[in-house]
This record gives sequence, structure tokens and C-alpha cells, in this order.
Amino acid sequence: MEDRVEISLLMDLYSSLLTEKQNEIMQWYYDDDLSLAEIAELNKTSRQAIHDLIKRCYKQLLSYESKLHLLEKSINKEKEIINFLEDLKNKYSIDDKDIIKYKEKLENL
Amino acid sequence: MEDRVEISLLMDLYSSLLTEKQNEIMQWYYDDDLSLAEIAELNKTSRQAIHDLIKRCYKQLLSYESKLHLLEKSINKEKEIINFLEDLKNKYSIDDKDIIKYKEKLENL
Repeated sequence: MEDRVEISLLMDLYSSLLTEKQNEIMQWYYDDDLSLAEIAELNKTSRQAIHDLIKRCYKQLLSYESKLHLLEKSINKEKEIINFLEDLKNKYSIDDKDIIKYKEKLENL
Repeated sequence: MEDRVEISLLMDLYSSLLTEKQNEIMQWYYDDDLSLAEIAELNKTSRQAIHDLIKRCYKQLLSYESKLHLLEKSINKEKEIINFLEDLKNKYSIDDKDIIKYKEKLENL
């Protein structure tokens, strides 16, 4: 269906805004790699219904991203941390070990 | 009604998830300081209807925060930046001017 990496990143950020049912099916399909037919059987529904539900979830995730931009911000953040640490290292003699430690710390901000 | 500072912080984070109409009324009430009666007149509706709409918006904002925790994270981020810069300053002799510059940079991450 859609790009699995993108879906996984969007789910990390916005899954709490989906319903329990939606989360369950997205997890079965993308994390546990169950087929549409298998999920349909588990839910006593049609393959098409599951296909439509997953498509709707994906659209919802994209809609949240278009409004909150959390994925875009997290990608920019990563770049800015690298730039910041490079500047810091150029100006002050920071140990490489500390740079690694700081990078991890800032990524978790 | 509710705490204006909290509402303002929540609106900064989640207003994009409210409708245009909800945003308009929240802005009139909290930013432009219009009364419920004034907003009701502008919308050709009752004071009670506006009161209920604002209350519903506030609940929606709280619900988004309970799921995404963006406000909680931003408060923690501020504390962690201060700790990080203190550690950095203690270990390396960083200029005060640079500390101020770094603080601003990290706050915008």
C-alpha cells in the first residue's frame, strides 16, 4: 500500500489520535505484517473494508501532519542539532565523547 | 472562564486542529477580549451557545493535550535546555553571550 517507513513515522507521532480499533488494524497490517485477508477474517469483515479502513487511517495521519507538522519539525530538528554541535565544536574544543552525549540529549528534547 | 494563560498555550499548539469558526470565536473571546454577549450578537446566536462552544473548544484542547502532550513536552524541554547549558558551561568555558545565543537556538528546535 503506502510507504511503510513514512506510515511508521506518522504512527509514532499521531497514533494516539486514532481509535483503538484503527490502531489495532494498522499494527496488524504494518507491524505484524498480516495480510488484508487475514485481518478481514479476524474482524469478520471483507478484505475491501479493511483496505478502506487502512486507507482512511493513512489519510487521517497525513491530515494531522498537514496541520501539526510534527514529522517535518522532527526532521528539521535533527539537522539543526547537527549544525549546532558543529558550531559548538568549531568554537570550543569539545570532546568527541561529549558531542555524542550531547547529540543524544538534544535529540530527546 | 478557564485559565487564560493555559488556553493561550494550548491554542498555540493545537488551534490548527480546531475549525475556522472555533478559532475565530476563541480569538474574539481570549485575544480580543470581546464579551460573550458581543460575540453572540456578531454570530446572531445566544450568549449560551457561545459559552457552550468555548467550553467545548477548551475540552477539545485538553483532549489533544492528553493524547499528544505537546505542552507538557515543551515545558520539560525548557528545563532540559537550562540543565544542558549549565552542564556545558561548567565543563567548558562558554561565553555568556554564546550561552544566550545557544539557549535561543535550542528553544527553537
